[in-house]
Amino acid sequence: MDQTCLKELKSMTSIEKKAFINSFDTIITDCDGVLWWGPKVIKRAVDTINTYKTFKAVYFLTNSSTKTTEQLLKKFRSLGFNAEVDEVLGTAMLTAEYLRSMGISKKVYLVAPVAVKSELEAIGINSVGCGPDVMPIEGFKEQFFLEPDVDAVVVGFDIHFSYPKLAKATAYLTRANHIPFLATNPDNKLPKRGGGFEPGSGSFIKAIESSSGRKATIVGKPSKFAFEYVSSLRPQDPKRVLMIGDRCDTDIEFGRKLGMQTLLVLTGHNKLDDVKEYKASGMYHLVPHYYTNSIADLLDLLTPAQYNSTENFKR
Amino acid sequence: MDQTCLKELKSMTSIEKKAFINSFDTIITDCDGVLWWGPKVIKRAVDTINTYKTFKAVYFLTNSSTKTTEQLLKKFRSLGFNAEVDEVLGTAMLTAEYLRSMGISKKVYLVAPVAVKSELEAIGINSVGCGPDVMPIEGFKEQFFLEPDVDAVVVGFDIHFSYPKLAKATAYLTRANHIPFLATNPDNKLPKRGGGFEPGSGSFIKAIESSSGRKATIVGKPSKFAFEYVSSLRPQDPKRVLMIGDRCDTDIEFGRKLGMQTLLVLTGHNKLDDVKEYKASGMYHLVPHYYTNSIADLLDLLTPAQYNSTENFKR
Repeated sequence: MDQTCLKELKSMTSIEKKAFINSFDTIITDCDGVLWWGPKVIKRAVDTINTYKTFKAVYFLTNSSTKTTEQLLKKFRSLGFNAEVDEVLGTAMLTAEYLRSMGISKKVYLVAPVAVKSELEAIGINSVGCGPDVMPIEGFKEQFFLEPDVDAVVVGFDIHFSYPKLAKATAYLTRANHIPFLATNPDNKLPKRGGGFEPGSGSFIKAIESSSGRKATIVGKPSKFAFEYVSSLRPQDPKRVLMIGDRCDTDIEFGRKLGMQTLLVLTGHNKLDDVKEYKASGMYHLVPHYYTNSIADLLDLLTPAQYNSTENFKR
Repeated sequence: MDQTCLKELKSMTSIEKKAFINSFDTIITDCDGVLWWGPKVIKRAVDTINTYKTFKAVYFLTNSSTKTTEQLLKKFRSLGFNAEVDEVLGTAMLTAEYLRSMGISKKVYLVAPVAVKSELEAIGINSVGCGPDVMPIEGFKEQFFLEPDVDAVVVGFDIHFSYPKLAKATAYLTRANHIPFLATNPDNKLPKRGGGFEPGSGSFIKAIESSSGRKATIVGKPSKFAFEYVSSLRPQDPKRVLMIGDRCDTDIEFGRKLGMQTLLVLTGHNKLDDVKEYKASGMYHLVPHYYTNSIADLLDLLTPAQYNSTENFKR
């Protein structure tokens, strides 16, 4: 078992750096907090990714459910990242693939954004519930209508989350037939750029789990489905994958659980003090193998010769 | 310590019945599921309460936050229950009293029904947030406004629960000054009369706790505040109080926690099988001392002579 734990990249010797670079064939990187933070691209992130892409496989894996693959791809390319359609993995698309893998085919009740509806449509699954569903001022006048053929409930980041949606999701999930209950991602507490926090999908999940007594199956990180999906595109040995992220309870736990190498960057959600606390409390599933200030530090691990001749590394 | 556990009222001998009746001076009874169930009054509940009121003190304690004391009193009287204003305890009023006891006096952000707003107004506390707060179709156009002088957040049963309310509650609760976070009651999963479940305040609490990382202080059962409030009206020895309820995780836990005698009636939320399971799993805080089919069985504990001469019992 790999005992590496919380090693700082720049503390490594040049021999260790070279061994580290040679220890993985594939990078799976989170996006928000690693490649950009809000509207701002992390300095030299584009150069880092594009350089590594010349000799490593790179996948972009985000827990966000608000963009389709096509929208994500457009964003990546507009920022200058070399990205292909199969390398871009958002939880809207992954949720559609998960439902397909389960044989769900009739109709899904969505407490989720338009991107999830679009990705379901793209593989021929109908849905209801997307968009605003506002409580009448005086409350429900009569019992609301439930579609008889709804065979799954999916929760994602839905800015139109409301009491009627909570009540309908609860009603579908507590009908006699125990239909599947999926959620795109568990992120509950998103740091606001101006300070404080704002709600994420995780808080909608908690509400619906509480009112229905059901437990949601998570599609995004730290669930293993995204790795199974990547492996179905191209077989992967997890020991030779480097998972890069800014959030321990999604990115690092995902990598650790699946036996990958993990690298925490400090440009986003978690700070070094958080990780030291996890380590002190024995929560090793949240402690990365490596950490560094920014993804751009990966570029500095390459010698100038390597940097300029990365074509030689190409597999 | 009183070891009585799950004794059926009608299995008692006439001597035990008499001793039981003499073992308490005060009844605190839950309402929905005990006195009525949805729109239907439990058979002989009115007669039972009115008879016991001639020789015991009786308080009506509901976790519901949707009615003011005045509205509750009107309901009780219209159904035929003898009830006085000091005997009727709903969580809208109790929450106002709790805030007063904490010295909250500026402005409260409410994710709660009009009744809470009214009870706050009645003791001179301002509030914001009550009523619909609907997300614009395209999302927030700009950062929402936060009142600088909000000094508490209160969550109750709010049919207008929405993403903007969740986001604002989260923002208030994660500002630098750690303002109090109260919730009227923890009931998360309310049985629908037509089958299945519907969301209660508890599920809104879970959402806000999750997005803010804060823990709500519960005002209603099983929190001890309602008992402190009753005791402030008239000193109570908990051993001589009988708590009657239909729900183990609120009513019975409340009574057990405070050292009262507890009676579960089977006309509402919990069934006998639930309680047997709690007992088998060692969850004694949820197991009542006594159980019976209906509150009306209390009437049958009285001999005809007692029944007709209850005036003699009057203290």
